[in-house]
Order: sequence, then structure tokens, then C-alpha cells
Amino acid sequence: MTEAIVSMKEQIHQWLDNNREQGTKLLQKLVQLDSTQGKEREAQKVVAEELEKIGIKVDVWEPDGSELVKNPYFASSRSQFEGSPNVVGVLKGTGGGRSIILNGHIDVVPEGDRDQWNDDPYSGKIMDGKMYGRGVTDMKGGNVSLILAMQSLNSLGVRLKGDVIFQSVIEEESGGAGTLAGILKGYKADAAIIPEPTNMKIFPKQQGSMWFRIHIKGRSAHGGTRYEGVSAIDKSTIVLNHISQLEKKRNERVSDPLYKNIPIPIPINVGRIEGGDWPSSVADLVKIEGRMGVSPEETIKQAKKEMEDWIKSLVEKDDWFKEHPPELEWFGARWLPGSIDVGHELMNTLVRNFRNVKDEDPAVEASPWGTDGGLLTEVGTTPAIVFGPGVTEVAHFPNEYIHLDKVFEAAEIIAMTLIDWCGTEV
Amino acid sequence: MTEAIVSMKEQIHQWLDNNREQGTKLLQKLVQLDSTQGKEREAQKVVAEELEKIGIKVDVWEPDGSELVKNPYFASSRSQFEGSPNVVGVLKGTGGGRSIILNGHIDVVPEGDRDQWNDDPYSGKIMDGKMYGRGVTDMKGGNVSLILAMQSLNSLGVRLKGDVIFQSVIEEESGGAGTLAGILKGYKADAAIIPEPTNMKIFPKQQGSMWFRIHIKGRSAHGGTRYEGVSAIDKSTIVLNHISQLEKKRNERVSDPLYKNIPIPIPINVGRIEGGDWPSSVADLVKIEGRMGVSPEETIKQAKKEMEDWIKSLVEKDDWFKEHPPELEWFGARWLPGSIDVGHELMNTLVRNFRNVKDEDPAVEASPWGTDGGLLTEVGTTPAIVFGPGVTEVAHFPNEYIHLDKVFEAAEIIAMTLIDWCGTEV
Repeated sequence: MTEAIVSMKEQIHQWLDNNREQGTKLLQKLVQLDSTQGKEREAQKVVAEELEKIGIKVDVWEPDGSELVKNPYFASSRSQFEGSPNVVGVLKGTGGGRSIILNGHIDVVPEGDRDQWNDDPYSGKIMDGKMYGRGVTDMKGGNVSLILAMQSLNSLGVRLKGDVIFQSVIEEESGGAGTLAGILKGYKADAAIIPEPTNMKIFPKQQGSMWFRIHIKGRSAHGGTRYEGVSAIDKSTIVLNHISQLEKKRNERVSDPLYKNIPIPIPINVGRIEGGDWPSSVADLVKIEGRMGVSPEETIKQAKKEMEDWIKSLVEKDDWFKEHPPELEWFGARWLPGSIDVGHELMNTLVRNFRNVKDEDPAVEASPWGTDGGLLTEVGTTPAIVFGPGVTEVAHFPNEYIHLDKVFEAAEIIAMTLIDWCGTEV
Repeated sequence: MTEAIVSMKEQIHQWLDNNREQGTKLLQKLVQLDSTQGKEREAQKVVAEELEKIGIKVDVWEPDGSELVKNPYFASSRSQFEGSPNVVGVLKGTGGGRSIILNGHIDVVPEGDRDQWNDDPYSGKIMDGKMYGRGVTDMKGGNVSLILAMQSLNSLGVRLKGDVIFQSVIEEESGGAGTLAGILKGYKADAAIIPEPTNMKIFPKQQGSMWFRIHIKGRSAHGGTRYEGVSAIDKSTIVLNHISQLEKKRNERVSDPLYKNIPIPIPINVGRIEGGDWPSSVADLVKIEGRMGVSPEETIKQAKKEMEDWIKSLVEKDDWFKEHPPELEWFGARWLPGSIDVGHELMNTLVRNFRNVKDEDPAVEASPWGTDGGLLTEVGTTPAIVFGPGVTEVAHFPNEYIHLDKVFEAAEIIAMTLIDWCGTEV
């Protein structure tokens, strides 16, 4: 490390220490503003104000649903985005440097059953170095790391050569319509960082996923003469077993060392089952719903085709399926897989600065879930790395929390990475 | 056959022929009166009037739910019976003869999806010798056979020695509270006939049944890391398979020749399954509901114990169940098994008169479903035979129908049986 770099690292560290209270309050304020789908406006206003404080001009707009729905990559449970603005702020570089997108989502998943929370889900309560609340880990903590990184560089008078495009997007939890709207508006860069909750691990690859539904038919009869009917519940166990074999087959193909610690790199999860309507009748219909993981090495289209062919091959397992083939449909949410070359220069830069700040090697893995990185990479031609301070295990769970220290550590690593990646005017 | 018997048979046959239109209209009227649970009053009024026509004093009462619920044999989805009267009419014998209960239920199951009916479910439409409508086969047709049998004997001046206790009961389709109320009011006899839809087969034994629910636990996790959770859906397939083994084991024990033509004498049918609440979450709870058949050779208590022990033995199938045992509960409807000795004198009498009228041997089998015969036998100490004109296959189905000829054939057989069983004053 050169002396200049050491000095800069110390200055950033010092600035973050001095602004710890301010950063913590910003995160608390964001957590206290419920930004579940449709309610993002107030939290976005706070984000925009923070950007304006350091002289960044912000672009605030509600995506046009009627345009988005025409796009093949659009997936959402809604098509109207009134009251749900995206916020993008561009910190213009002085020229000649590499650009970067810093992307975080403002939407949070619903708090669920409030009885399972020890405090109000939007309390922002701090205890033992942790802040609690819906979205604190997924991913308002990561967003605050990004804002702090930019604010620290601004305060220290660092002038980057490349552009930093900060994005606070809606809809990540519902399929990425916010990030898609940003791409369609023309926001692209040489690479991107998304501080989703990775426990400070670095994910150059993200699993994609999509939802499916299968209708399995039977033939009704009275339970007392059940042999006169065909149980859709019995048939569904054949389908479940068949799907489990497909999962096995698909995962045996995954050889990427990034997946070496992951028991099932691209799982197929059947999360819902429902069928029959009377205890003493033979069920004539069962519906199962699940999530199919999509490898970063394949396309959504390839994965869909494999599942479709596999379900068709059920006729070989049971003659009933010849006349009554299970029907597969794709519905609801979908996240594209994402991948950046592990030798990509932003990977080297991020890993180097992680070591620099933490004095240890980062864990580099593939993420078990999709992020907006898939859209940025595949549609926005902006390869993305996922790396953030949040706690993976508590995302989407009651009593979600984040370790506040990590928010500031991530901010420091990201600030240093921006200097390295975008270059600076000395 | 003695000449006197031949003559009586011809007279009854003639009377039924002469009164075919009147009998058909009575059945049509009963079918047109929707008597689903809670709406039985109007149809019962018609039944009571028919009994009064031949001078029978009728006992009409709404069972007292607050008393019934205290009885261990009570099973129903309700405990209030206002608007749902039982009707019992006793044709007093002259003395010295055997008594008989003629029991039919007035309640019908709901019509279900009206779109699956070709006509209004309560049309009572007649076409090609069949009458259509909800309840025509299960079991208003059988009830009319009983009424016609009594009316014919009355018109022909036959004076029976034994009492004939005619019962038009509520609640058979929901667990038998109507028949139970009759028993508790003191109505008992030497034997009983229940004209449920048996396709004119004679059932000395009836399978009992009861409903169960099993809660199968898992542990939730994100679908992308499903290996961190335990899928209640996966575990439910183990439970389903385990139940299927119990069904096999129980049926291997059934050696009664009455079951020789029945592929699965006492089936266990799982009719409903429901679990999980999100496609991309690991399901932490699955609920299955089913119906367990109970053999006439065993008690409800024995069957319950066998199932309870069997579900407990799941711990040997999968370690997960040691800490998270599936929970079994009994709920909803229950029908006691019923059985009369195949050598019982009423069996001989009925078989003889069947041959006499039809000139062929009756099929004698065990019924695959429960009736109120279980309650009459076990609680009312009145052994019952099930034999009726309805079409087994269309009971509880859309476009339910009955062959009108069979209603009159059954009436003739039952009238002759009453003469034989109760004895007559010459």
C-alpha cells in the first residue's frame, strides 16, 4: 500500500467514525418509514435529500407501467407505479475514469405476522450494536453504506474521474421493475455493486429464479370406493419425486468452484401444495407451486425448457399421465441470474480493498438467490457484484436486524473501491 | 309359495301398479323440496302428511342439541336443530309379532356446482323411466318405497302383529344425529331396514368411517437455500406412504366373503392436502385430511387406536419425526360400522321375498360406506340391513337419478317382508 492510499483509508475511516451518529440516524429514519410495495415515496424523499446535500442532482420518476409491461424482462404483481418513484443521482466524474452503478432497492417485504416481532417492525430500535426493523438488513443498511461512501469522498474533497451512478430503486422484491426502468432510461456503467445482505461475502454470481405452478389431475370418487377414482394427491407424490430428480440432475452439472460450499447450488423448491376439497372424496385436482433456481451459466429460457420437457416426460413414469398430463405454468416473480467474470477488474479491486480494510480475505461465493444484478448484467450490459453488510439469515424474517459496525465497514470498503475503480484527480 | 302368499303378492303388485302415478308424484314433490342440512322442515311435513293419510299418529320433534352434544355418539357440524324436525310414525301391531324399524334420512347433500347439472338440481324431471334431482337416489326414492309399502298394506287391509316404526330422520349425511335422537327417545325394534341406494343389493354389513386430520411440521427457510430448512411437503409424502401401508395391512386382515368382490374393503382415503404459503419458501406446515374406513368386525375405538399407534410409529421412518411428530386429530363426521348376522331371520326373510318378487337371487355384499345402521345396531340394539332402490354410483353426484321401476319393486319386496317378519292376523 502506498502512503497516499494509507492516508486516504485513514481519512475515510476517521470521517466515518466522526459521522457514525449521523449515519445511524439516517438508517433509523429509513427503517421507520415503511416502504413496502406501493409506499416507497417517503423513504425515497429522504434518500434524495441525502444526495442533494452533497450537491448531486437527482432524477426522481415514477416508472411508466404501460411502457414497462411491453418489455419481455418485466415481471411484477402490478403495472401501475404511482406513488413509487425511483431515485437516481449521478456524481459526474472529471473524465477518463471507469463508471460504476451503485444499486440498492428501497422496497421491503411485508412485515408478516406482527406477533412474531419482539418490537414494532418499523421501530429501528438499537440494542447491543444491532439495529432492528423490517428492511434494515434487506437492504436499507447497504443503501446507507453507499450513501456514506459517497458523502465521505465528497467531504474529503476526493474528485473521481469516472461517473458514480447511485440508484435507489423500487420493486426488487417483486421482480426488478425499478432497475429495469433505470436501464430503459439509459443508465448504464462499466460495472456495478449491489449491497444486498451477503454477510460481507462477495458474490460475483447470483442464482436466478422463477416461479412455477403445476396442475395435477385425478378422478373423483367416494372415499369408501376410492378404487373407482384416481387420487390427484397420490399422483402429486410422483410429480414431487420427479421434480426432485430434476433438481439432482441439474445440480450434478454445476461444477463452478464458487458453489463448492453450497449443498444444492440451484434448488427447486416446492413451497405450496393444495388439493382436494372433501376428506371422504378422492381428490381430482392438486396444485403445487414452487421456485426453480436458474444457474448463472444458463438462461431463463434454457431452464424453462428443461423443466417443461421434464414434466412432459412424466408420461414415462405413470400411464395415467398419458391421458392426463400435468400442466406446467410460469407465473409471478422472476429474477434473472447474474454473473461477472471472477477475474473482472472490479472483483480484484473490491477484494483488494476488502483486505485493506478488514485485514482478512473475503469469502467469495455464488449467491443462492437472485438480485437486480441479473437485469443489470443481462439487460443493462453492466456486470454486477453483490456485496453488502446485511445478515443473510434474517432477511424476510421477523426481528430482522443488522450489525451497525458492518454498515460502516462496508461504506469504507466501497469508498476505497470507488477511488480505485473510478480513479481520482490527484 | 303358498296360494295365500301368491295372492297377497299379486294384490300388493296390483296396488302398486294402480298407485304408480301417485307414488311418483310423491317422490317428485319430495325431490323438489330442497332438504339440505337446516332446510328439512317442508319435506318432513309432506312425509308426515303421507303417514297421517293411513291413520298413523306421527311424532314430529326438533332434536335438542344441548342434550345430544353430551352423547359420546353424537357427531355433527352443528348443535342446533331448529327447523330440522325428525318424523317418526308407529304403525301399532295387533300384538305377538316382531317389530321393525324402517329408517330413511330426509337430508340430502348440497347440489354442488350447478353448472354440472343438466337441469335444475331440484327439478324432479322424469325422462326414460328415470327421475332426476338431488336426493332422489340418496335417499328419497327409498323413503317412498317404505311409505308405499305401508300404504299398500293398509289399503289391502293387512293387519300386522308386530309394530312398524317408520323414521324419517335428519342429519344422516352429517354423522347421524337424527337417528341418534330417535334412539335416545326410546325407538327400538327387533331389527331394521334402511333403504339407502344399494342398487337393490342387500348389505348385512356396513363399513363405518371417520375423518382425521394430520398436521405435518417442517422448518421454514428461503427456497434458494432450501437445504437450511425442512420441507413439510417432502415429509408429507412419507406420511402419505405410511398411511397407504396401514391401509394395506388393515385390508389384508379382512377375510369376510361379503368383501370378496371389493378391491379395498376398508379404504383410507386422503381427500385433502394443503401446505406452505409461498412458492419460494420452504413449507413449515402441511395439513392432510382423510376418511378412515372402519370394518364391521372392529369398533371405532379399535380403529382409532390402530391409526394413532401407526402415526406414532412414523418416528421409525424418519428421524425428523422424533422431535416433530405429526399430530393426528379426529374431527367432523363419523359413521359407526354396522352388522347383522348373515343368518339373522330378517336376512332370510328379505332374501326370500326378493327372490319371490324378482325371480332371481339378490347380491349380498358389505357396503363400502357407513349408514345410520351403525347407530341403530350399536347404540339402539336394533340390527339393521341396508337395501334400497337407489343407484349407488350417482349418490352425491350431479345429475343424480333413480330408476322409477326400482322404487316400486323395492316397495313390493319390503311390503312382503313386513308381512313375513311382523306376522299378520289372518
